[in-house]
Amino acid sequence: MSDGRIVILSGGVGGAKFALGAYKILPANTLSVITNIADDFVHLGLSISPDLDTLLYTLAGLNNEELGWGRRDETWTFMNALRSLGGEDWFQLGDGDLALHVERTERLKRGETLTAITRHVARSWNITADILPVSDDLIRTMVETDQGELSFQDYFVGRRCQPILRRLRYDGAAEAKRAAAVENALLNEKNRAIIIAPSNPYLSIDPILTVPGIRERIRQSGAPVVAVSPIVGAAAIKGPLAKIMAELDKEVTPVTIAAHYGTLLDGFVLDRTDEHLKGEIAIPTLSTNTIMSTLDDKKALAQDVIRFADTLATTRAPKGVA
Amino acid sequence: MSDGRIVILSGGVGGAKFALGAYKILPANTLSVITNIADDFVHLGLSISPDLDTLLYTLAGLNNEELGWGRRDETWTFMNALRSLGGEDWFQLGDGDLALHVERTERLKRGETLTAITRHVARSWNITADILPVSDDLIRTMVETDQGELSFQDYFVGRRCQPILRRLRYDGAAEAKRAAAVENALLNEKNRAIIIAPSNPYLSIDPILTVPGIRERIRQSGAPVVAVSPIVGAAAIKGPLAKIMAELDKEVTPVTIAAHYGTLLDGFVLDRTDEHLKGEIAIPTLSTNTIMSTLDDKKALAQDVIRFADTLATTRAPKGVA
Repeated sequence: MSDGRIVILSGGVGGAKFALGAYKILPANTLSVITNIADDFVHLGLSISPDLDTLLYTLAGLNNEELGWGRRDETWTFMNALRSLGGEDWFQLGDGDLALHVERTERLKRGETLTAITRHVARSWNITADILPVSDDLIRTMVETDQGELSFQDYFVGRRCQPILRRLRYDGAAEAKRAAAVENALLNEKNRAIIIAPSNPYLSIDPILTVPGIRERIRQSGAPVVAVSPIVGAAAIKGPLAKIMAELDKEVTPVTIAAHYGTLLDGFVLDRTDEHLKGEIAIPTLSTNTIMSTLDDKKALAQDVIRFADTLATTRAPKGVA
Repeated sequence: MSDGRIVILSGGVGGAKFALGAYKILPANTLSVITNIADDFVHLGLSISPDLDTLLYTLAGLNNEELGWGRRDETWTFMNALRSLGGEDWFQLGDGDLALHVERTERLKRGETLTAITRHVARSWNITADILPVSDDLIRTMVETDQGELSFQDYFVGRRCQPILRRLRYDGAAEAKRAAAVENALLNEKNRAIIIAPSNPYLSIDPILTVPGIRERIRQSGAPVVAVSPIVGAAAIKGPLAKIMAELDKEVTPVTIAAHYGTLLDGFVLDRTDEHLKGEIAIPTLSTNTIMSTLDDKKALAQDVIRFADTLATTRAPKGVA
């Protein structure tokens, strides 16, 4: 079973780091990354898929490590010219990044699915993993805040997550059809593990899990299901997760994350810092280094998580379909 | 009358050079440039107006003098990234140039007119001349060739004008409404001269003149009408004009150009090289240096043409409406 397939559920930056670690230690064509699309939006007429893009750039080795987002060797001539025209400049679009958005927008207009377009991009850049949008339908995170209801990018980029979050809604998720490639990835008999990356559960993973049938397919899968905590100590490694948890009246600890995924999981992974919390988590829990500064950190974490999942496979109790 | 307004009819590069000369010698807000839009097209989902863009870049001092088209200080990261995705790369789009197309496309989608958008861009870049698309409706040059009917940019850029041209058609021109700003510019009582720039008559000026009412307004105008020959010797200064004239069985000489505009003109301007041809042209004809290598050349030519038009104003016979 050690030559099986790995499925990762992922959002953007944190998930992509973890996915890169797995990608680097696994044989070609054995990794599928099911990706959040609820951050996607249309900006300046262009269809932008931030989480898919981050995964594509990261696995292609094209990601911008200095910025932590976008493309490496990027230029900004477009943004400067746009600014001179009084254009909307609150969302930064690099010149090279634009090509991906323009090409995707054109292909969507021609009737290609987001799945097919993402596959085309991945192949163009010689990525030997499947990066799979959870659905080819539109899903849009809407954020209820103290400043009213905001679209996700308005909240996240436009207002830098400063409004107080009251509730999240994933418009379209409950009606979205899971993509055929996602279905196949989840039900593949060779699956060795299904891993929820250390992404934001509320902003990145829940929109995936809300698509009808996804939870059931994960449960039906013969593979152990493991989540990696995006919370270390009482803080998020990156992004607004800790702030959001506080605003949602949740305790900012890995225990909350484990409880959030609940019976979906067979195992949980938290950082060594939080080893003392293992007793509060009812399922098998691994403590290891989850902070991914270097590529070696990413590979080591992926290795640890997959090996941990392997230990769960033999002891795993069959789960019914919800 | 020497503080009157100047109206130029123009295509892209050659016309823009002449317009720049006039712009540099005239007081602010006394120049209108009525511009061809029949080269416009939608590429990669973006509305591109090559002749308007060339005028905007040239009068704003943002034109790329090395390339002869596009924007100065341009970068090409977008095109390189697009190529890596197998995107359409036959039409070069610089990173800064893209901003103009993206902003225009967005504004068109919002329902703004091409006239209003062009005015916005001109103001953003502190251009104190009016750059006026002849119409806010679509006009599209179609090229009948030995390789079948081609859209203009396919012929002009995609195939580098290599097919043999048999006939030109300006789709939409005969039904297009002249823009209100064009109407106002042509009928302005302060008009001192209407000048047809040394642009390609077949590709750039005829699409303007085909819009219903344009010829009549030019005739109704109290101002003398002068054209500058784009042919010097038996060659075009730039572009495919000489080749096209030969394919249309026309003699490649300024005399053909003067005859082409016919009774629309009160005067004609040709290069000193062609001074011996003055006798073959039935209207008053000025010979001067028409080759615009430097900014001083451009200013001198504009000065010569305007002064020549001034001499025609007093002797000008009233023209009826066709």
